[in-house]
This record gives sequence, structure tokens and C-alpha cells, in this order.
Amino acid sequence: MSQPDPRPHIVILGGGFGGMAAAHRLDDPALRVTLVDRRNHHLFQPLLYQVATAGLSAPSIAAPLRQILRKQQNVTVLMDEAQGIDLADKRVRLAQGPLDYDYLIVATGATHAYFGHDDWARYAPGLKTLDDAFAIRRRVLLAFEHAEREDDPARRQAWLNFVVVGGGATGVELAGTLAEIARHTLPREFRRSDPRAANILLVEAGPRVLPAFAPELSAKAQRQLEKLGVQVRTGTAVTAIGPDSVKFGDETLASRTVLWAAGVAASPLGQQLGVPLDRAGRVLVTPELAVPGHAEVFVVGDLASVTRPDGKPVPGIAPAAKQMGRYVADAILERIRGRAAPGPFRYRDDGTLATIGRMAAVAQFGKVKLSGVLAWWVWLVAHVYFLIGFRNRLVVLLDWAWSYWTYQRHARIVTGSEPADES
Amino acid sequence: MSQPDPRPHIVILGGGFGGMAAAHRLDDPALRVTLVDRRNHHLFQPLLYQVATAGLSAPSIAAPLRQILRKQQNVTVLMDEAQGIDLADKRVRLAQGPLDYDYLIVATGATHAYFGHDDWARYAPGLKTLDDAFAIRRRVLLAFEHAEREDDPARRQAWLNFVVVGGGATGVELAGTLAEIARHTLPREFRRSDPRAANILLVEAGPRVLPAFAPELSAKAQRQLEKLGVQVRTGTAVTAIGPDSVKFGDETLASRTVLWAAGVAASPLGQQLGVPLDRAGRVLVTPELAVPGHAEVFVVGDLASVTRPDGKPVPGIAPAAKQMGRYVADAILERIRGRAAPGPFRYRDDGTLATIGRMAAVAQFGKVKLSGVLAWWVWLVAHVYFLIGFRNRLVVLLDWAWSYWTYQRHARIVTGSEPADES
Repeated sequence: MSQPDPRPHIVILGGGFGGMAAAHRLDDPALRVTLVDRRNHHLFQPLLYQVATAGLSAPSIAAPLRQILRKQQNVTVLMDEAQGIDLADKRVRLAQGPLDYDYLIVATGATHAYFGHDDWARYAPGLKTLDDAFAIRRRVLLAFEHAEREDDPARRQAWLNFVVVGGGATGVELAGTLAEIARHTLPREFRRSDPRAANILLVEAGPRVLPAFAPELSAKAQRQLEKLGVQVRTGTAVTAIGPDSVKFGDETLASRTVLWAAGVAASPLGQQLGVPLDRAGRVLVTPELAVPGHAEVFVVGDLASVTRPDGKPVPGIAPAAKQMGRYVADAILERIRGRAAPGPFRYRDDGTLATIGRMAAVAQFGKVKLSGVLAWWVWLVAHVYFLIGFRNRLVVLLDWAWSYWTYQRHARIVTGSEPADES
Repeated sequence: MSQPDPRPHIVILGGGFGGMAAAHRLDDPALRVTLVDRRNHHLFQPLLYQVATAGLSAPSIAAPLRQILRKQQNVTVLMDEAQGIDLADKRVRLAQGPLDYDYLIVATGATHAYFGHDDWARYAPGLKTLDDAFAIRRRVLLAFEHAEREDDPARRQAWLNFVVVGGGATGVELAGTLAEIARHTLPREFRRSDPRAANILLVEAGPRVLPAFAPELSAKAQRQLEKLGVQVRTGTAVTAIGPDSVKFGDETLASRTVLWAAGVAASPLGQQLGVPLDRAGRVLVTPELAVPGHAEVFVVGDLASVTRPDGKPVPGIAPAAKQMGRYVADAILERIRGRAAPGPFRYRDDGTLATIGRMAAVAQFGKVKLSGVLAWWVWLVAHVYFLIGFRNRLVVLLDWAWSYWTYQRHARIVTGSEPADES
């Protein structure tokens, strides 16, 4: 506050996987780091679908940014929202005032997108934040309550038809878990309606589910989903979503619960940079992950559009964001220390995992492809391992063991309300 | 739905301690029981302050009503809201339609009251539901964030002045926990402001805190609070609460965070019965806990005004509500079976407990009075024992052990938003 701090100032926008990896790597008292996030917590997004489906408590997959970084004295955390970036003046416009930087790392990620159908957002919520997860949990749990109160068979079935749009990892995980809830968790608890009458549909416009995996794993994932009771419709685009129905292919289905797991759009902050973006709004960065013409500004994670030497894009997953965050932090450290810049960013594929349900998952490590029970164990160990904090690892394992044996889901509480609920 | 059910129909309004105790006791296939609650979960209210202060996850203290009652086949759970009671026609008006009863148990409890100052609700939230707890957690956590952003010392201190109104159990628990958060959980995590500069004030209009306890325990509780860093003002009434200040006694304190733990008013459903109420809106029931003139309608829990033989009121605590619920269920069973009615309700005092903070509590069992570490252990064992579900007991114990050793609070997440936050 008194004297200007002479240390180079690195501003990181976003406390997700990319931003946090960069912050951790910049642990050097000769640097000043400011991490800005509009939320107070880092979110372990790969398990967010479990909060949305009442399997985990929110605090088990979220940790306060301040707590994670409390020992790293060169980092200041600001809970604030970036509204603009002034590249010429090296300044970020936050909601609460301007913030100057020497180096900037933009790691604000992505949000769900409706491909020009923003009116669908009301009826088909997406899943990116804890509040999104609570909204989905509320809708799903209340749908079964409405079905219990409804005497008209057709209207009751509309409450029991669940449509998940998008066959990527999130869509597959949501659909698989919904099927388990309807078939195993709820049946004995309702007296008038039968939760087992629920239809869970997974609708994917492309030719197969989990397109990031090898085709044989997609086929296995689809079979595992069908075994759990999910109806899978591939090659089927959704063309309309309303308050009580959804249209896909030639079909119109009465459904009160549509969940959106189809589209991702980069954070609008990318547009502020005034540089070319790809179709999804991601910044076309240099091979060094910098903004073209601004070697001191980097973009990492889901907001960066990076191509691998074989022409494939770097996927929008946590390990990729972490690698980018670390790479950029190292590049800044080298430059500040006057050393040669590292070569271009290279994505190391550590494998891809997706879970489908109880003892069902797929995994791909280079040429090694796993499915079923073994893939599920790999998924479980990896996800517990990467969770932040001993308490969370232990409680999540405990919650999973408890759910596994009892088929119960401990976070089945309806909280909050919104007008859309009553629709 | 097809034939009318010939069994006597008992309707229970409210799934709190009283309503659930009655439902459990009415486990007889010869009876039909309908439990109505506007929420889908039973809430273990004695630990709600720990959700509000980020120590526990909401699902650890809430269990779905359907899940608790799933094995009791004669019970139907309805998620609905009672809007009126028609005593003459033996019918309850629910939001979604009418419901006829043969016997009615009204157990809709109490809510916080502002003694004619309803405008204070905006600035001083109370604590009765999970959503209340989230709102308080959000305000408390954001207050420290605002303090960190504020350069003006006076305005910063206003964010660090916390006023808890009401020296009953909830007020004492909130104030003690806030002091611990400010002094132990947060200090290393802020770079500009010092959370230890927080003032925690507990303001009580009566002559002592914890008036339900013996005077010497009140004195001990006050000393334990002061040791934790709480300023206790007894004999001091709050006279005004605004967006950034609170008036009590001769003092006006700049404070952005006022929490209301002072007043309780019975559920408005009591007024629907058209019978005399006490000053707090509770129903003046007969010695058999029935509504005067309607032997088939009972009121239990916080909504019932019951006097003990020594003239003292039955306290508004969970054990009393449970005893009333069981008593009323037994009375109905006896009557249906054509047996003599039991004598008037008698409250059995199993003791009273209140916790103040780490290793600090008071307990009173008849003439036995405990305080300090021993009372704290009794409090801990009792609260874990009465929690519903093995998973919750285990995880709550684990969370407490973790908090105890690390001073961390795992549920420190800000979720949701409301205009009042920005005030």
C-alpha cells in the first residue's frame, strides 16, 4: 500500500485447474502474484455431476482458494470479476477497480453454450458451477415428487422422462447416474408412482457417445449405458426444447426435465483480447500459449485453442489445463531470470477416463484401452488422488463406499428455489 | 385411488422432530399415515449453526423424509405446504389440494420473529432452514472478502464487526464459532486485512446468556465466550438495525453483518385453528396436547404451548418435541384400539446442553451442572448419537476431528447470491 512493490507482478485470472497450476508453480518470493476469481473456491469439476445427482456434498469437491494458497506468501487472492483487459496499458479492469500487470495469465475457462438457442437455457440447465449442480439436483428430485402427486398417467410420465442432451463425458455420467437413482435409490420410497417407470434418454447429435475415445470404447460405453437402463440415441440432433417437451429427430417427447451437456463456449473474456478466436470462442494462441503480438499475455485451459503436432486439438480436460498452467509459469520464470524461453507447448496425453455408472467406465492410455470394472477402479483411484485435501479424499471414498453398498445418495436435499421450478 | 381406504387416516403436518417421532410411533399396518412437509428433508436443527459457519456440509445434517420412512409401508410422504385447516370438516388445505383426516397432528414448529421490526429481516438474517444457513455462511465469508478489498480503515472495520442478537443457545453457538473463525481459521489467508481485527459482539436484552440454564452456568458460559474473544453485552436491547449499522443501548456500531438469534414465533398455521394462542403465537393446548374442543387434533413441538406442573413452560427443544410426538401417537393408538386414554402429557427433562466453542460447553441434568471440557464431550456424544444415519455420524465425527486438529472448516464455499449481498 505504501511503496510500490518492485517485484514483477503476475496476474492470473481464474482459479480453475490452469490458474491454480500456474499459481503453485510461481512460488518464488521474487515475484508478486495476484489470483483473481469471482468465486471463493476452486472446484473439482470432474466430480461436479455427482453433486448434481446427490451423491456428494458440494464442500467435498470445492476448496477455498485462500486456504489452498495460504502458505504461498507471494500470492494475493482477490475475489472479483474481470470485466475487460487493456493490452496496451497492461491493465485488467475488475468490477472493483483496475489492476496493472507485468504478465497476465488468462484462465477463465468455458461455460455451456446453446448454439444460438439461448432460450433453451431456461428449460435445459447446464453444469459448470456448484449453483448449476444445485439447480439440476433440485429439478431431478422435484420431478419424482411431481410424478408422485400427478394422477394423470401421461402428465406423470412427462415428469418421469429425463432427457440428457450431449454424449460427452458429462452427459454419459449424468445419464448413467440418473438411471441408477431411478432404478435403485428411489423405488421403495414412493407409494403412488414408480420411479422405475422413468425413461432416461441420452441424445447425441454425432455418430457415437464419448467421441474423444476410440470407437470400440464408445461402443462399449453405449452398451454399458443400455445395461443400466439408459436409451441412447446417437446421430440425433435436438431441434426444440420447451417447458414440457423436447424435439429430436422425428420425435417429440413429453419431458419436464432436460439437462444440457452438449455445448461448451469459451469465457467471453477471450473476445476482449481483440485477437482471432476459433468457432467456440477460444483464443488462437501462439505455440507458446501467448496472445499473438503480446508475449506477456498467456491463455491456458479451456479458453485456449491449441493444436497438437498431429493436427488434433488439445482436449478441454483438467490435465491439459494443468500442463498449460505449469508451462506458462515456467516460461514467465525463465524470462524473468533472463534465460532462454522453453520450446513450444507440448501436450502430454496421460490418458482419458470416463465413468458410466456402478463398476462401469472406459479408459484409454495411448494404445491401452480398458472398460468395465477395471476402468472403473482406475477412474476411482485417479479421481480421489487428484482431489484437494485429505478430508475430502477420505469423505468422498466413504461416501462412495456407502452409496455402493446401500444404493443411497446422501445429498438428496432440495434447497433454494426459482420460478422455473414451478413450470 | 380406486376404493376408499377403510383404515383411520392420520395426517401429520411437519417432518421435524415432533412429526417424525409421531410417524415412527404410528408404525401399524391398521393405520394410514400421511406426512406432509414443504421440504423433502428432515433437518437436524441443533447442528444448523455449523452449516451456517462452514463447519459441516448441509447433507450431513439433513436426511430425505422418504428415505427415513421408506420401510414404514403405512406412511405416505407428501412434499406440499399446508395453507389452512378446516376443523369442522376434518380437512387440511394443501397447496396442491385438500386432504381429509380422521386425526391430525400439527407439528409445523416455529420460525424467527423480529418483534414487530420485520424490516430488520433484510439486514439481520435468522437461522431456521438450510437456505438460511447458506445465506448466513455467504454473508460471513463475504464480509472478510469485503474487508480485504476495503482501503478505508473505518469502512473496513464495519465489515469486521459482527453482531449476534440474542443470547440463547443459537446466539451463543454462532458467536463462539465466529470468534474461532476470525482468530484461528482465517488469519494466515489474507494479505491486506487482518481477520483477527474482527469484533464479535453478542447482544442479549435479558440479564444473562443461556437463560434456560442455572445462573451459575450462564456466568460460566459468558466467561468461556469472553475467553474465545466474544464481547458479551447482557441487559442490552437492540433498538435499530440498518444496512451498515446497529443500535443497542446507548451505542451505535458500524457493522455490515448482523445475525438474528433473538426471537421465535410459532408457525402461522396455529392461527388457522381459531383457538387461543399465547404471546408467541403458540397454541394453548389441553393437558392431552389436543386443540380445545377438538380431541382429534393435536399440536406438538414448538407450536404447542405446554406448561409443566411447576408452572414452567416445556422448552422449545428437540427432546420435548419428540416426547410430544410419541405421546400423541400413543394417545391416537389407544383411542383407535378402544382403550383408555393415557393421562396428561408429562415432560421428562433429560437435561439441556449448549456448546460455546472448542472444548467449551455447559450442561445441566437436574441438579448436576457441568461446564468446560466435560460438558463439551457430553454435547458431542449426544449430538452425534441423535444424528440420523451411520454415514452422517461418521462423517460429522470426521469433520469435527479434522477441524479440531487443523482449525480449518471444510464447507467454506460461497454459493448462491441475493441482492442483499451487495448492500
